[in-house]
Amino acid sequence: MNLILLTSEDRIESGEVTLDGYRADHIHTILKAKAGDTLRVGLVNGPVGKAVIQEITGRLVRLRLFLEDHLPERPRIDLLLALPRPIMLKKVLFHAASLGCGRIFLVNAGQVEKSYFHSSLLREHAYYTYLYQGLEQAVHTYLPEVFIFTRFRVFVEDELPFLAVDCPIRLLAHPETNENLWEVMPLTLEDERILLAVGPEGGWNAFEVKALIRQGFRSFSMGSRILRVETAVAALFGQINLLCMREKLPNKDNGNYL
Amino acid sequence: MNLILLTSEDRIESGEVTLDGYRADHIHTILKAKAGDTLRVGLVNGPVGKAVIQEITGRLVRLRLFLEDHLPERPRIDLLLALPRPIMLKKVLFHAASLGCGRIFLVNAGQVEKSYFHSSLLREHAYYTYLYQGLEQAVHTYLPEVFIFTRFRVFVEDELPFLAVDCPIRLLAHPETNENLWEVMPLTLEDERILLAVGPEGGWNAFEVKALIRQGFRSFSMGSRILRVETAVAALFGQINLLCMREKLPNKDNGNYL
Repeated sequence: MNLILLTSEDRIESGEVTLDGYRADHIHTILKAKAGDTLRVGLVNGPVGKAVIQEITGRLVRLRLFLEDHLPERPRIDLLLALPRPIMLKKVLFHAASLGCGRIFLVNAGQVEKSYFHSSLLREHAYYTYLYQGLEQAVHTYLPEVFIFTRFRVFVEDELPFLAVDCPIRLLAHPETNENLWEVMPLTLEDERILLAVGPEGGWNAFEVKALIRQGFRSFSMGSRILRVETAVAALFGQINLLCMREKLPNKDNGNYL
Repeated sequence: MNLILLTSEDRIESGEVTLDGYRADHIHTILKAKAGDTLRVGLVNGPVGKAVIQEITGRLVRLRLFLEDHLPERPRIDLLLALPRPIMLKKVLFHAASLGCGRIFLVNAGQVEKSYFHSSLLREHAYYTYLYQGLEQAVHTYLPEVFIFTRFRVFVEDELPFLAVDCPIRLLAHPETNENLWEVMPLTLEDERILLAVGPEGGWNAFEVKALIRQGFRSFSMGSRILRVETAVAALFGQINLLCMREKLPNKDNGNYL
């Protein structure tokens, strides 16, 4: 935990907040902090800053907050993910929140087991844990918004066109494709938002691929290796972030870079 | 498990092999395969191919092998990793093997807890499990070689120069750097091998960074997010593989790609 994350449930009064539970335990046990010490804090979807420990009483920690005045930007990548089994979903939520993700659309697909939708993890307060852990790791406060869709076709045909209207770049990781990410990434990458679709362990079926392509997705292959969903998501966020970074480079078109 | 992985301990006789243990269980329980069915198989550091189930008797599965005749190429990336705690190392070994890795140098560092070197995981047969799982996932057979070094300075000054003589590109992921991966990647990337150094959770110390830079490493930052080692390794392998892919693109210098 590199950041003490405060949520809307923490009552901040006169610039102070009192913590109990796992964050207070972390301050005690792992950081071994004491009154007067300074910690990194952040407010979910709000500013980051510093906190000075005022008092530690039993399992309670009282902090005085010194927050900066800017809000986090929404990360540029949204993730459309065929709902993985709960143990894998926890890891993907953690990776995505730590790497920076705007929205996560969890959707059904032919190769998704229906029981996954009944997992207790899909209750808001359960999956938030893993998103929070990702933010606490990364020292960022933008909480990805999670949406759950139990009907693939209804989602893709009726809801996606509206939900993803702000994502002109739509990428579909799909092993059975000849093109790679270089070939499907627009040449004039500016600040557009990007929607990345990642399929289930068994892959999207032909109907699903067609339906996504009809919605403007371009499919690309990461190579011959079959990756676990959590590995693929981390590697793909790395790749897309790297490509987005290129547009910010000085003199990027003068042969200064690969 | 997308590949039934055979090791040198499996006795292949007259083109047949008999499996027990976790692979036979997988064939029974997950694949629910029966005599006559075809499976994907591969030999560690050897060819991949197909196997036809000849007979299933109790917990034993007898396979007839039809292996292709080419050997796996050594992946281009080697990983120099400050030894993480065992639970994290398992994940990193899995990710690295599934993403493709030639060698893994596990080294000591100021922020590495000495007890990690006494973990039972560091015995060859223990950590092989996670490398095998990565290969079984990715359907590749090149087994990363693992080397363990308990003294950072001796390793970097005396051993690395010889061990990494075939790795002219040396990259050091280090948050406290202004340059990014684009800026440190050579412009004329050909088939050179790449050695990627990833530090401990608390970061490399100043002495360690200097020592690595003296050995030709160029440091770069992935951005403002602090990533868990396993997330960083997957994202970085994704990024480096993407850059390596660019050199294979047709007409890559004609402005066809980002």
